[in-house]
Amino acid sequence: MKVFFSEEHRRHFPQAELCGGEFVTPFERPSRVEYVLGRLKEQGLTDIVAPGPVDMAPIRTLCDPGYLDFLENAWDEWKAEGFAGEVIAANFPARRMQISRPPRNIDGKVGYYSLASETALTNGTWAAALSSAASAQAAQAHVAAGAKSAFALCRPPGHHATADMFGGYCFLNNAALVAEAFRRDGAGRVAILDIDFHHGNGTQDIFYGRGDVFFASLHGAPEDAFPYFLGYADETGIGAGEGANANYPMLPGTAYDVWSGALDTALARIRAFGAEALVISLGTDAYKDDPISFFKLDCPDFLDAGRRIGSHGLPTVFCMEGGYAIQQVGINTVNVLEGFLDA
Amino acid sequence: MKVFFSEEHRRHFPQAELCGGEFVTPFERPSRVEYVLGRLKEQGLTDIVAPGPVDMAPIRTLCDPGYLDFLENAWDEWKAEGFAGEVIAANFPARRMQISRPPRNIDGKVGYYSLASETALTNGTWAAALSSAASAQAAQAHVAAGAKSAFALCRPPGHHATADMFGGYCFLNNAALVAEAFRRDGAGRVAILDIDFHHGNGTQDIFYGRGDVFFASLHGAPEDAFPYFLGYADETGIGAGEGANANYPMLPGTAYDVWSGALDTALARIRAFGAEALVISLGTDAYKDDPISFFKLDCPDFLDAGRRIGSHGLPTVFCMEGGYAIQQVGINTVNVLEGFLDA
Ligand SMILES: [Zn+2]
Ligand SMILES: [Zn+2]
Repeated sequence: MKVFFSEEHRRHFPQAELCGGEFVTPFERPSRVEYVLGRLKEQGLTDIVAPGPVDMAPIRTLCDPGYLDFLENAWDEWKAEGFAGEVIAANFPARRMQISRPPRNIDGKVGYYSLASETALTNGTWAAALSSAASAQAAQAHVAAGAKSAFALCRPPGHHATADMFGGYCFLNNAALVAEAFRRDGAGRVAILDIDFHHGNGTQDIFYGRGDVFFASLHGAPEDAFPYFLGYADETGIGAGEGANANYPMLPGTAYDVWSGALDTALARIRAFGAEALVISLGTDAYKDDPISFFKLDCPDFLDAGRRIGSHGLPTVFCMEGGYAIQQVGINTVNVLEGFLDA
Repeated sequence: MKVFFSEEHRRHFPQAELCGGEFVTPFERPSRVEYVLGRLKEQGLTDIVAPGPVDMAPIRTLCDPGYLDFLENAWDEWKAEGFAGEVIAANFPARRMQISRPPRNIDGKVGYYSLASETALTNGTWAAALSSAASAQAAQAHVAAGAKSAFALCRPPGHHATADMFGGYCFLNNAALVAEAFRRDGAGRVAILDIDFHHGNGTQDIFYGRGDVFFASLHGAPEDAFPYFLGYADETGIGAGEGANANYPMLPGTAYDVWSGALDTALARIRAFGAEALVISLGTDAYKDDPISFFKLDCPDFLDAGRRIGSHGLPTVFCMEGGYAIQQVGINTVNVLEGFLDA
């Protein structure tokens, strides 16, 4: 399996994550991908290439123009305002407030274009997010050109990002870009399966009214887990998208027996949907020792999950999402890929 | 003029305010009221008394039960979760997310019940917020019993708090409690005039569908100033409240010539409305050297503003809101009261 990866990801390394009322070193940090790269090489997956330049056109098609302008200029506007820290949201359009009027002031704009305040935007964030999207685009192009599968080792991740909001460590929704690219390349129906511990709220939001892209997510119940305000089982899509959204929220302590049942159900739904291409939001924070999650999957479970996904035989792009147990993120992530290849 | 003030306010003193991507000592701090108390005594306003116990019934009538439960227990739940810092929101129900499903997890509940992440909740916040509300209640009772006016030296302030969200340094909406108390005591129509630099989004939100309580606010334009997502001139009320909400957003650099024109217009609207009692959300952060605001009022302007308010002759309760230029917050606040008494 070919792997697409850009060293530009290093340009996104905030010093601060708001967690428990304190600033901590972000769980989503550059070293995560070092462990994945190390494990890939260890297991002989050595076809690792840098993507070409990012294709902005599909990003402009997917995202709100004001949001893209914000991502590109936020750091400079923030510094021009005299703020000493990194760009972090301190306000937001809450219930019953204006949700369609972006402020002029950068402090307000950050709130308008964010869905959480744990994630800081820095000087290099925009470049890193674009390089991450470029890896996703290159992986999709590789599969569209005939390969059975590819792995986009994306950083920063993407599944929490909507077309107009960042948060949960995500800025551009890589999985959504891949799904849209498959559609443009001729696939009539595409499925996105999100196995990250956290609900892929951004991806769901982007395709919620669409009948051509099926979204399924296995995740910690929103009552108990970030992003808290999306991911309920009764969110099934709207309009043309009714029935094309499937959430599998699960409770604290969920282990592989229950989780794999949800995986099989989701895969059966995807098969019934008639997907011609598959995008996997590949987070491995369902791992039992993940520091910010509460499922109980063990390392071999990821190998088995990869096999189940692979058994469906669909052209598949994997996009890296979360996974914060640094020592195991490489093993678990590559286990999914190896299981897929073994299927 | 009788002043109601509780020493319990000291129990709310967060160490952290999220500002410019950093933690700073909160602008809204206990010493603010020391300067107001000092100036009151200097000017002979020495009838300063502690309120009686808070009356919970009107607070329960005004607020969402889940919100009150949250305020009371947030600190304990936060600490039980193992968080080391103060209670600060790191996530929130953003656009197109679930806005009617409070999470079980305290980290999610904080996001659900907040409208900004600059404001920390601490061990003593609930007690302080209740003591602040008690001062407002006592001031209203004093006026309802026949006094022409009273000053509730409230801390924490209240005008950003809705019936179900804290933020902008506010937890319980004192001005709204006073207005409701006037209604219960027989006033057919009540007006709230908010002269704090920031839009009184919480107060507006509480009365937006009501025709019996008129709300007017003079404030920094939402495009440029916190709370950013409410306070536009075209927000005029809804349903029975249509026409009973008047916003006067003004641009950076606005001085007293323009500001006083808006004040006169607001007072004329209140007179035309037929208010029988008046509540003033008394913030003095419109002052030219306020560290987080951008109007250009000078100290004597507050004296004049007080005169204009007083000339309407309505039974009036002043509730302390913002004002962060520590050296002048006493002078400016007491100037409004003295102007009122001179009218
Ligand atoms: Zn995750
Ligand atoms: Zn203010």
